[in-house]
Amino acid sequence: MDKEMSMKESEKIRVAIFGASGYAGYELYRILKKHRNVYISYLTAETSAGKKIDDIFPTIDDGQIVRNEDVDINDLDAVFLSLPHGAAKSVVEKIVDSNKRVRIIDLSADYRFDDADEYERWYGKKHTSPDFLDDFVYGLTEINREAIYRAQFVANPGCYPTAAILGVYPLLRTKLIDLSEPIIIDAKSGVTGAGRKADVRYLFAEVNENVSPYNIGYVHRHTGEIEQELKKVANADVKIIFSPHLVPVTRGMLNTIYVKLHHELPTSELAHIFSKNYENENFVKVLTGLRGESEAVATFQHTMNTNLCVISVKKVENSPYAIVVSSIDNLGKGAAGQAVQNFNVMFGLDESEGLL
Amino acid sequence: MDKEMSMKESEKIRVAIFGASGYAGYELYRILKKHRNVYISYLTAETSAGKKIDDIFPTIDDGQIVRNEDVDINDLDAVFLSLPHGAAKSVVEKIVDSNKRVRIIDLSADYRFDDADEYERWYGKKHTSPDFLDDFVYGLTEINREAIYRAQFVANPGCYPTAAILGVYPLLRTKLIDLSEPIIIDAKSGVTGAGRKADVRYLFAEVNENVSPYNIGYVHRHTGEIEQELKKVANADVKIIFSPHLVPVTRGMLNTIYVKLHHELPTSELAHIFSKNYENENFVKVLTGLRGESEAVATFQHTMNTNLCVISVKKVENSPYAIVVSSIDNLGKGAAGQAVQNFNVMFGLDESEGLL
Amino acid sequence: MDKEMSMKESEKIRVAIFGASGYAGYELYRILKKHRNVYISYLTAETSAGKKIDDIFPTIDDGQIVRNEDVDINDLDAVFLSLPHGAAKSVVEKIVDSNKRVRIIDLSADYRFDDADEYERWYGKKHTSPDFLDDFVYGLTEINREAIYRAQFVANPGCYPTAAILGVYPLLRTKLIDLSEPIIIDAKSGVTGAGRKADVRYLFAEVNENVSPYNIGYVHRHTGEIEQELKKVANADVKIIFSPHLVPVTRGMLNTIYVKLHHELPTSELAHIFSKNYENENFVKVLTGLRGESEAVATFQHTMNTNLCVISVKKVENSPYAIVVSSIDNLGKGAAGQAVQNFNVMFGLDESEGLL
Amino acid sequence: MDKEMSMKESEKIRVAIFGASGYAGYELYRILKKHRNVYISYLTAETSAGKKIDDIFPTIDDGQIVRNEDVDINDLDAVFLSLPHGAAKSVVEKIVDSNKRVRIIDLSADYRFDDADEYERWYGKKHTSPDFLDDFVYGLTEINREAIYRAQFVANPGCYPTAAILGVYPLLRTKLIDLSEPIIIDAKSGVTGAGRKADVRYLFAEVNENVSPYNIGYVHRHTGEIEQELKKVANADVKIIFSPHLVPVTRGMLNTIYVKLHHELPTSELAHIFSKNYENENFVKVLTGLRGESEAVATFQHTMNTNLCVISVKKVENSPYAIVVSSIDNLGKGAAGQAVQNFNVMFGLDESEGLL
Repeated sequence: MDKEMSMKESEKIRVAIFGASGYAGYELYRILKKHRNVYISYLTAETSAGKKIDDIFPTIDDGQIVRNEDVDINDLDAVFLSLPHGAAKSVVEKIVDSNKRVRIIDLSADYRFDDADEYERWYGKKHTSPDFLDDFVYGLTEINREAIYRAQFVANPGCYPTAAILGVYPLLRTKLIDLSEPIIIDAKSGVTGAGRKADVRYLFAEVNENVSPYNIGYVHRHTGEIEQELKKVANADVKIIFSPHLVPVTRGMLNTIYVKLHHELPTSELAHIFSKNYENENFVKVLTGLRGESEAVATFQHTMNTNLCVISVKKVENSPYAIVVSSIDNLGKGAAGQAVQNFNVMFGLDESEGLL
Repeated sequence: MDKEMSMKESEKIRVAIFGASGYAGYELYRILKKHRNVYISYLTAETSAGKKIDDIFPTIDDGQIVRNEDVDINDLDAVFLSLPHGAAKSVVEKIVDSNKRVRIIDLSADYRFDDADEYERWYGKKHTSPDFLDDFVYGLTEINREAIYRAQFVANPGCYPTAAILGVYPLLRTKLIDLSEPIIIDAKSGVTGAGRKADVRYLFAEVNENVSPYNIGYVHRHTGEIEQELKKVANADVKIIFSPHLVPVTRGMLNTIYVKLHHELPTSELAHIFSKNYENENFVKVLTGLRGESEAVATFQHTMNTNLCVISVKKVENSPYAIVVSSIDNLGKGAAGQAVQNFNVMFGLDESEGLL
Repeated sequence: MDKEMSMKESEKIRVAIFGASGYAGYELYRILKKHRNVYISYLTAETSAGKKIDDIFPTIDDGQIVRNEDVDINDLDAVFLSLPHGAAKSVVEKIVDSNKRVRIIDLSADYRFDDADEYERWYGKKHTSPDFLDDFVYGLTEINREAIYRAQFVANPGCYPTAAILGVYPLLRTKLIDLSEPIIIDAKSGVTGAGRKADVRYLFAEVNENVSPYNIGYVHRHTGEIEQELKKVANADVKIIFSPHLVPVTRGMLNTIYVKLHHELPTSELAHIFSKNYENENFVKVLTGLRGESEAVATFQHTMNTNLCVISVKKVENSPYAIVVSSIDNLGKGAAGQAVQNFNVMFGLDESEGLL
Repeated sequence: MDKEMSMKESEKIRVAIFGASGYAGYELYRILKKHRNVYISYLTAETSAGKKIDDIFPTIDDGQIVRNEDVDINDLDAVFLSLPHGAAKSVVEKIVDSNKRVRIIDLSADYRFDDADEYERWYGKKHTSPDFLDDFVYGLTEINREAIYRAQFVANPGCYPTAAILGVYPLLRTKLIDLSEPIIIDAKSGVTGAGRKADVRYLFAEVNENVSPYNIGYVHRHTGEIEQELKKVANADVKIIFSPHLVPVTRGMLNTIYVKLHHELPTSELAHIFSKNYENENFVKVLTGLRGESEAVATFQHTMNTNLCVISVKKVENSPYAIVVSSIDNLGKGAAGQAVQNFNVMFGLDESEGLL
């Protein structure tokens, strides 16, 4: 295989995946195993330490799982943290205290907020390491690419915020949105977004043949994350209404976004604005409908098992409203895929490496 | 069984189900078989004529299917029409020409519009029997009960309109909604709503692990039907944005509805308005959250295999917007269930007969 | 409603459902609520005591849950025990010690074995109340109806054994099976058969898009239960190979059974043997294929949400082997449905009451 | 990307995919697009000619579809035929008549049988090009690798035969199986195995929440294909009983295989025989259970989206029977994956190219 040919093992970037027994952690492992510049030094998982990957997941891979504390930070160039919220702190501390510029890509919400008060508001508890907040760059690659390149620490965005922000960004930065009305985000998510925990709510017989809204009405934690980032883009106050729904699908996510524009704009012009905005992106694709497809609309299937965000946009007839549909795989661009994309940016690699 | 005990066969209401090989037609059959006041005289289906029910569906029922033309109208007291759009006309004509007051409950869209032009606008073709439009009452039971009782002909509502109108009605009739902004209806539907036709789009492998918006942006035919009925309630112009999504579920439907109110109202007051409005209804239930459930929100499972419409409502914090979630089974209250409910009203029976 | 009309509350049979927060317990509740001869006095569940049914399940029913110990046995005529294995004992003891002939229908495996050693062999622990074993009748209604009628205590069969035994019974009692080869039972089950427990194995994302064999190779506990009952029918040693598979379906079960016959028998004769055997049964139906259906084969959908067992049988061409397919709903005939059927038999009621 | 780096376009193997609008054809396209030695010259599909890939599938790929007749054979080095049964003939004729050694990998059943009579027996019609039968090698890579390497034409095996034969092969070639009893193959397949045709039987609402046996009892066409190949391995008559079941999964397949051995063999020895047999294979993996996993059993998830065949084997206690579970992805090793594996062998490439 050319993986070996292209780079000697000693020259590879040595990484650890913390939390490899979860869905996002395992997806990181699956992607990074094929990444030509990466050597995976450690897989960790607290309760599964001592087991092998194929004791946990239906696969034939016998990668060994160790405890978090078994990881020697000095042996590493980068760590991916796919731990429960609140657990990243101890690893961050170790790395800060070490002499080495070990990069961190943290998939938890711990360092996504700029402000510890906002964290407390949405997560209902005091932040335990607010001093680190300034050290983390918000890792929505397409918007913060330069800062990510320079950063040692990246806070990987939530899945809903990734789809939502990419779906609103081109209209918001061009000042086309009438912000006197809220941006309404009606989201549908596959169940792996909730993580791999033994909880009756996520049993097959509860999720199957069901669609469930949850945390609607300005309650869900991602509301704050989305508003924070949109405000920076708009340089103005942005109010969103965010309504997530659980659907009986393993992986996938769709945000259906309703925005009021200052003026009516035809679908073709809206599509052009999105296409133009993302024309140089590998992982954001716009269904323009310009080729004449009867209905060019983003679906779960457009992005499943990929790192893509696929977007479609449509004017509402006789109305200043537009509807954006933004699709990602919640484990791809919504978690592990974007984490690797950020990793690639941080190390100056081809941004697509390992992701095609 | 008490079914036989309670009524002699000769005293029963004799009905035909036209279109029994579709999902809604078969559901009508399943309900009416257990209805104590009904004798099913005919089941029809054009391409399946000559077959038995258990040749078509996985069941042990050997009910015989005949052609539409084999039905003797004079033998009947009522007909349920679950035919493709446009096909009801010939049966209606026969009944109009007969000497008998045979009731019709039509599940198609043919006679739902008050105005033939509106029909043409949304269905893209001239109405072929506009003279009958005035003879049909729009069969949303909870809103038009009196008119349905007096009617010979009822146009059974579409599934989306049923859930949407019941979800908006209490706020609209009380003039609480600020109609300067559109009412946004983000709907999720199980796949039986599309009927039982051999179409690649509804194959298992296309629908499974997918969520697909379709006909969004003031395009879907139910948009006109919803607006027509809401305008009557509001006695004013009502603009809606209606976005249906296909989800991988056999039966079920959820409308997530975003309304701007004139003034902020707390969730408890909103819930009270809905509860009060529907307090005497057997088939509309409001999850008030008043008992203190952490999250009382309507889901598909609340209504699956029932004739219920289950509604929850929630204020958006610091905002005049409210979110209503309205759940029905698209084959229950969204089609066959409501048809039987209307039938019960038309014949002065207990409205719940056959439906519990 | 005629439910009230038909019987005064004071004349009804007073029952308790122990374990109402599980799938089978809740299904018992749903059936018994519509049962015209039953008054439900108690619903119990240990960890959910104090809650209401609609706090646990997505429904609009506010039935109150109490603790097991809150039940006053003297207030009751019958109890349904849908408790974890091992937990029935204390209730049985109370009833034995009482002065009242309170009937028990136990849905656990605790009293299905005739012999405590067999229980220990398959369940891996000593039986804690072996003295009660003789007091329980094995509740496969179609086979033990008379004994069930006379019994105070009934051990409701497991779901797999119900489908397996009914699928083999007509051929076994007629001595047509060559018992020198094992009877091979390849079973497929929906996930509610595993109960409603927070276990990673039954999460949506683990079960969806998957089929998993488990406990194959003479390991699954139902193997012993099936062999015990088949031996009684055959009056000879019967060896089975039983391979259950978990499939991504909420409820349903299919046993595909391979039997070697002493002589080749055509499909029509096989179908006749089954039809004849079950001709007076309300809840066992045989797809004979005699009417000429191209393929009359039992599927999950034939029995879903019913108390039916639907069976098809087919000869293997040029071979003495026959294939029986036996379908039940694991929560219907496989659990709650059969429990109510047994209850009806025990109290001399119409066997179908509450089950149609 | 190194794809371009590794090989100039002019040096690549030029291929056409006939039938790219089906599930297997599209899967071929997805694999071959990433194959470093392949240039895809044509995609064909009769009814979709003129469309682009993203008009047919939810993807962002705009590959152009042409008619079969638009393909210039002289422009090609190899063709993949993923056409309806019976349609390969005209392409084969063109290639035979050309002057070029264009390789064919045919995914249909047309040239899998050695004998035209057997084809007629199982497919119910005369073979229209029996003279070509001898020119095709049966493409089960692990068994016929040498012949495939030398072949111009390969008949890619059916999905069921692939899983079945690989599951029986190690025991059959070592003469361990007692062939006086039939080998029983109880198979479960995802729905893409049935192809992408508008057929009511494969609608979501028919397949979902269902498991359906079909063509059981020595009827399914793959029975003949499996027996043909097993007879060659055994050099003796082999009788199988083959019972396929449709399960509500998009892609995946499991064959649960029951074999009677001449003598009892412990699970560890059985696992060793399989491991030894396939130890040099990249795409057949045996779950030995030797490391002590509590239950090492093959499931759909072990092979989904891969070209793997994963096998587990278990002795039946106190019995000479063994149970083999053999898992493949029906579109992977069961169709497109194995086709590419064979292509790699035919062209002397790394057998894994494009498949990892």
